[in-house]
Amino acid sequence: MEKNFKILRGGITSVRGFQAAGIQANIKYKKRKDMALIFSQAPCVAAGVFTKNQIKAACIDFNQSNIKNPIHAIMINSGIANACTGEQGKKSCQESADQISKALQISQTLHITKDNILLASTGVIGKQLPMDKISKGILLLTKAKSTSMQSAKDAAQAIMTTDTAPKEVAIEVPIKGKKVRIAGIAKGSGMIHPNMATMLGFIVTDINISQKLLTKALKKDVKSTYNMISVDGDTSTNDMVLLLANKKARNEEILDSSDKDFEVFCKALHFVNTTLAKKIAQDGEGATKLCEVKIENATTTKQARILAKSVITSNLVKTALFGNDANWGRIICALGYSKAKFDAKKIDLSFISKAGKIEILKNGKALDFNEKLAKRILAQKEVQILVNLRDGSKSATAWGCDLSYDYVRINADYRS
Amino acid sequence: MEKNFKILRGGITSVRGFQAAGIQANIKYKKRKDMALIFSQAPCVAAGVFTKNQIKAACIDFNQSNIKNPIHAIMINSGIANACTGEQGKKSCQESADQISKALQISQTLHITKDNILLASTGVIGKQLPMDKISKGILLLTKAKSTSMQSAKDAAQAIMTTDTAPKEVAIEVPIKGKKVRIAGIAKGSGMIHPNMATMLGFIVTDINISQKLLTKALKKDVKSTYNMISVDGDTSTNDMVLLLANKKARNEEILDSSDKDFEVFCKALHFVNTTLAKKIAQDGEGATKLCEVKIENATTTKQARILAKSVITSNLVKTALFGNDANWGRIICALGYSKAKFDAKKIDLSFISKAGKIEILKNGKALDFNEKLAKRILAQKEVQILVNLRDGSKSATAWGCDLSYDYVRINADYRS
Repeated sequence: MEKNFKILRGGITSVRGFQAAGIQANIKYKKRKDMALIFSQAPCVAAGVFTKNQIKAACIDFNQSNIKNPIHAIMINSGIANACTGEQGKKSCQESADQISKALQISQTLHITKDNILLASTGVIGKQLPMDKISKGILLLTKAKSTSMQSAKDAAQAIMTTDTAPKEVAIEVPIKGKKVRIAGIAKGSGMIHPNMATMLGFIVTDINISQKLLTKALKKDVKSTYNMISVDGDTSTNDMVLLLANKKARNEEILDSSDKDFEVFCKALHFVNTTLAKKIAQDGEGATKLCEVKIENATTTKQARILAKSVITSNLVKTALFGNDANWGRIICALGYSKAKFDAKKIDLSFISKAGKIEILKNGKALDFNEKLAKRILAQKEVQILVNLRDGSKSATAWGCDLSYDYVRINADYRS
Repeated sequence: MEKNFKILRGGITSVRGFQAAGIQANIKYKKRKDMALIFSQAPCVAAGVFTKNQIKAACIDFNQSNIKNPIHAIMINSGIANACTGEQGKKSCQESADQISKALQISQTLHITKDNILLASTGVIGKQLPMDKISKGILLLTKAKSTSMQSAKDAAQAIMTTDTAPKEVAIEVPIKGKKVRIAGIAKGSGMIHPNMATMLGFIVTDINISQKLLTKALKKDVKSTYNMISVDGDTSTNDMVLLLANKKARNEEILDSSDKDFEVFCKALHFVNTTLAKKIAQDGEGATKLCEVKIENATTTKQARILAKSVITSNLVKTALFGNDANWGRIICALGYSKAKFDAKKIDLSFISKAGKIEILKNGKALDFNEKLAKRILAQKEVQILVNLRDGSKSATAWGCDLSYDYVRINADYRS
C-alpha cells in the first residue's frame, strides 16, 4: 500500500453518500440476514465485470443492459442464485428491480426506475426466487438503510453463503486535492475460480470519474486480483464485481487515462480488490490457511499468472498444504502441466511464513532441507510458495487455500 | 464388447510368450511388492504414449529413445517416481536397464542390451532411486519371472501405490484365423488427469503387426480411454502407456490400416484400455463410487469430450456425488465454464444407476423430480450422469470418482 493511503474503520458506508442495509428475508436460510442493499441518492457511474461461464444467472444479463445507466442501488440476495431459471428468472429480476426502485423513489422523491438498479444473487442454482419473500425483504431494506457502520456490516453479512466471516475494507486516498474514499464488500467461498470477476464483489467510491475510465480501471485490476484466486477450480454462474462512483468527493473529474491521479485511483482500487480477494481465498470453504503462490522473474506476466494459478488450483498441492507436508514435487508437477513454458533447470523454490523461510530447490535441484522446519513454516495461518524462474523480470501472485476434510463435508450436502 | 471377444481368466501372462514377476525390494514401502517385470523372450514391437507434462520423469526420456527398438522387457518400480532427479536420475535409468538386460541375457542366452528395455517408475517426486535396492530387486525379478497366473497378479500388485486393488484384464479375439490375445495391467490412483496417457498402463499382445500400426492404434485409443478419466485434475510427471506385441499368435502380419483385421484389433485394444481406465477411475484415491459422464448428440466428438471431462473434473460435482446429492446446478455450471459451446435451452439431464433412471432437466428446464429416488440412484457404486445436447450425433464418455474425506486424508501426508 502507498504511504499516503489511509485505512478506515468500517465498510461501504464510510464513503460519502452511500447507505447500506442487510436484513433477514428467509429466502432459503433461516435466522440469518440474506438480503442486502447499497444505495446512493446521488446517481453513480458504474462499472462491472461478469462471469465468463456460458451459463449466466438472470441478474448477469439484467446488469449488463443497465450498467451504462446512472445507478442508484445494488440489491443482493443470498440463498438462491437465480441461475438456470429461464424466463421466470428474468421476470423475477424485472419485478425485483421495479419494486426496489419504487420503494426508494417514494422515500426520496427521486426519479428512479428499474433501469437505475443493479442486482446480484448467490446460492443454489436452479431454484426460482420466492417473490413474496423478496417483496417483503424490499420493504425491510428500504426502512433499514442508513449510513451507519453497522448497516455496512449488515450488508456484508447478508451476502454470505458458506463464508465464515463478512469481508469489507475501506480506504481514503488523496486525489486532486480531495480525500477520495473507496470501500468494498465481497463474498466467497465455494465455486470460486473467477474468470473475469469473482463470486460477488461490490466496491463504492465517491470519486468523480468518467464511466469509461472507471470501467478501464476495474477491468484491468480484476486480472491481478479476483482472477488470481481459486478455492476449488469451479467458475460460478453468478460471478460479478460492481463498482459505483457517486462524485461526492467533488474532485475535478478524471477524464484522461494519462492523468497521474488516474494512476493513484488505480493503485487504491488495486489495494481494495487485493484485500477482498485475499479475504475470499482465506475464507475458502473448509480452509485452514491462506496460501499465496508468487512466481518471480518470469518472461511475461501472462506466463507468471498461468503458473501461479496452476499451483494454487492443484488439489494435490492443496491437500499437502492441509497436512503441512513440504511435498514440493506436486508444485513442480503443477507448474509442468500448466502449459506455460519455463526452464526446470533454473527454478528456485522456497516456503515462507511467519515461522521463517526455507529453500527447497536451487537451480532446479532439491536441497537437503530440514523437514521439521518446513513443517513448522507450513503450519502457519498464511503461507507463501515462492518460485523464482530466473528467466525475466515479470511476476504474478495467486491466492488460495488448502483442501481439508471440511471442504468435503460442506459440499457433500450443500443443498439440504 | 464384440460377441466374438472372449474374456480370459488371469492377466498379462495369458498372452503367449510373456512372463511376469512382482517382488519386494523395499524401495520405499515396507512389506509389499514394489518391483515388477514383464518379459518376452521373443523381441516385441512396441508403442508408447507419454505424459504431456513439461516436467518428465527420467524414465520417460529413456523410453522415448528406446521405443522403436525391439523390446524384450519392461521393468517398473513403485515408491519413488524418479522425477525431478536431474543427471543422477538419468544415470539410474541407464544403470537399471543395463543390469536387467544383463540378468535376462545370462539366463536366456539372448542378445539383450539396455536399448531393448523400457522402464517405468511411480511414487514420490524428487527422490533418487536407491540403486543398491534396485540391483537386489533385479536379481529377485529375474529368478521369479514365470508364465503363471500368480506372477501376472504379482506384477499388477507391485506397480500399485495408493491403489486398493490390482488392475488387470485379458481377452482373446479372432484375427486372420488366429486367436490373438491382448492383456494389460494398470495403476492409479492419485495425480490422475492423464494428458496423452495414464499414470501407468502396460498392455501386451501376441499379434503380428507393424510398429507403425501398433503406434497408430494406441495413440488413437488413449484419446477415448485413459485421457477421459480424472481423479483429481493433476497430470502426473510419469504417465505412460506401453504396448508390446511379440507376434506369437503367428497371424499374417497386419501392415495396412485399411485391413479389416486392424479394425478388429483396435476394437479389442479399446476394450482392454477402457476396462483398465475404468478400474483406475473406480479406485481413485478415496473413491466410494465410479462416476461416468456421458455426453450425447453433440456437434463434434471434441466438444463432447471437453464437456464430459469438465463435469468429471469438478470438485463440486464430485463432493455432491460423495454426498448422494442431486445438485444438478453444479453439473450445468461445469458444462458452462468448459469453453465448449452448447445450447443450454436444449439440454436433457438424467442420473442412471442400478437403482433406476431419473430425469432432472428437459429442454434446459428443471423437472420437479423425486429427491428420494435421486438419492437412491446416486448412492449406488456406479453412477452415470447422462447429458443429451440434442445438437448433433457425436458422443463421449468420461470416467472419474467422487471426492471424499479419504481423498484428503490420503493426500495430506502422502510422503511420510
